Amino acid sequence: MVRRSGRRPGNQDTRQSILESARTVFAEQGFDKGSIRAIATQAEVDPALVHHYFGTKEKLFLATMDAPVDPGSLVTEALDGPRDEAGVRLVRLVLSVWDSPAGVAALAMLRSAMSNEWAARLLREFVVTQILRRAVAQLGIDEREAPLRSALVATQIAGLAVVRYVLKVEPVASAPAEQLVATVGPNVQRYLTGDL
Amino acid sequence: MVRRSGRRPGNQDTRQSILESARTVFAEQGFDKGSIRAIATQAEVDPALVHHYFGTKEKLFLATMDAPVDPGSLVTEALDGPRDEAGVRLVRLVLSVWDSPAGVAALAMLRSAMSNEWAARLLREFVVTQILRRAVAQLGIDEREAPLRSALVATQIAGLAVVRYVLKVEPVASAPAEQLVATVGPNVQRYLTGDL
Repeated sequence: MVRRSGRRPGNQDTRQSILESARTVFAEQGFDKGSIRAIATQAEVDPALVHHYFGTKEKLFLATMDAPVDPGSLVTEALDGPRDEAGVRLVRLVLSVWDSPAGVAALAMLRSAMSNEWAARLLREFVVTQILRRAVAQLGIDEREAPLRSALVATQIAGLAVVRYVLKVEPVASAPAEQLVATVGPNVQRYLTGDL
Repeated sequence: MVRRSGRRPGNQDTRQSILESARTVFAEQGFDKGSIRAIATQAEVDPALVHHYFGTKEKLFLATMDAPVDPGSLVTEALDGPRDEAGVRLVRLVLSVWDSPAGVAALAMLRSAMSNEWAARLLREFVVTQILRRAVAQLGIDEREAPLRSALVATQIAGLAVVRYVLKVEPVASAPAEQLVATVGPNVQRYLTGDL
């Protein structure tokens, strides 16, 4: 255990401990209210050490999103395969990330985006522009249709996350992932490649 | 205009002014942070007058949701008609409410539900149990399937609201309502009556 005012051991354990504390604090308090100080306290390290490892709070926030998964490459991977099953694979990916430890960070990001314009812009730009549109392009969809199709996919993915993980509406909250993959996947598929 | 420390005229204008201020304050600050004092200041009335007209903050919050629309009867109305166009009518109703002045209150409720367990429970119980399940029952759907179908409808409706009004992802944010009715309606229809 690293003492709060002790030496600064430059090891992976400390970095990992800060990341885990950041996930917890951001999830509980959102991006705005979750302070570096609160994260440092939770990790039992000096606040300066948090800055040393991650720089700004924004970078730390992104780090909690990137670790342990890289959403961009995961989505690219999920969409690689039979075109008419891309929707099913995308929903399966989303649920596997949200049901994993990374889901806590994703939830924090979604919560922040609901009340904070900066976080909303981050989520909008990062998820939609960087991930979904690139992914839609990968499916060989008309570039003129890609923005609408990816935004529609975003409505279903965001809503699934809100209902399952935030509002916790049954039976969606407790349903096995594969049941939701089977029921929601075809709707995402229509947005991706279907007749609109 | 009613002065903050003036007499207490028991008229509709004052009540309406408080309601409008409450919608604005809840939308900007959420349910938790939006105080009776802030609402009274915005409406230029004494805080005691807010309590006089609406009782608790919870009751005021519900009043901002109920006025000027009654979601329950609107949904029942929207689902009354050809069964295979219920999805389209439901999306049209949702967009017409969110695009109206009542949308500000709906947005406040959604934001509160994202960060506050009380508001999440309220939204869950009110929207899903009272509105959607009753509405699904109205379509003559098997009672055993109704909870899953209504929760799935909730994923699409909640996600549409989040992407159009909170994250403001284009082109969904600026799309004419009827374009979204045509593109999203069939997906809601599948959740309501389609093969899952």
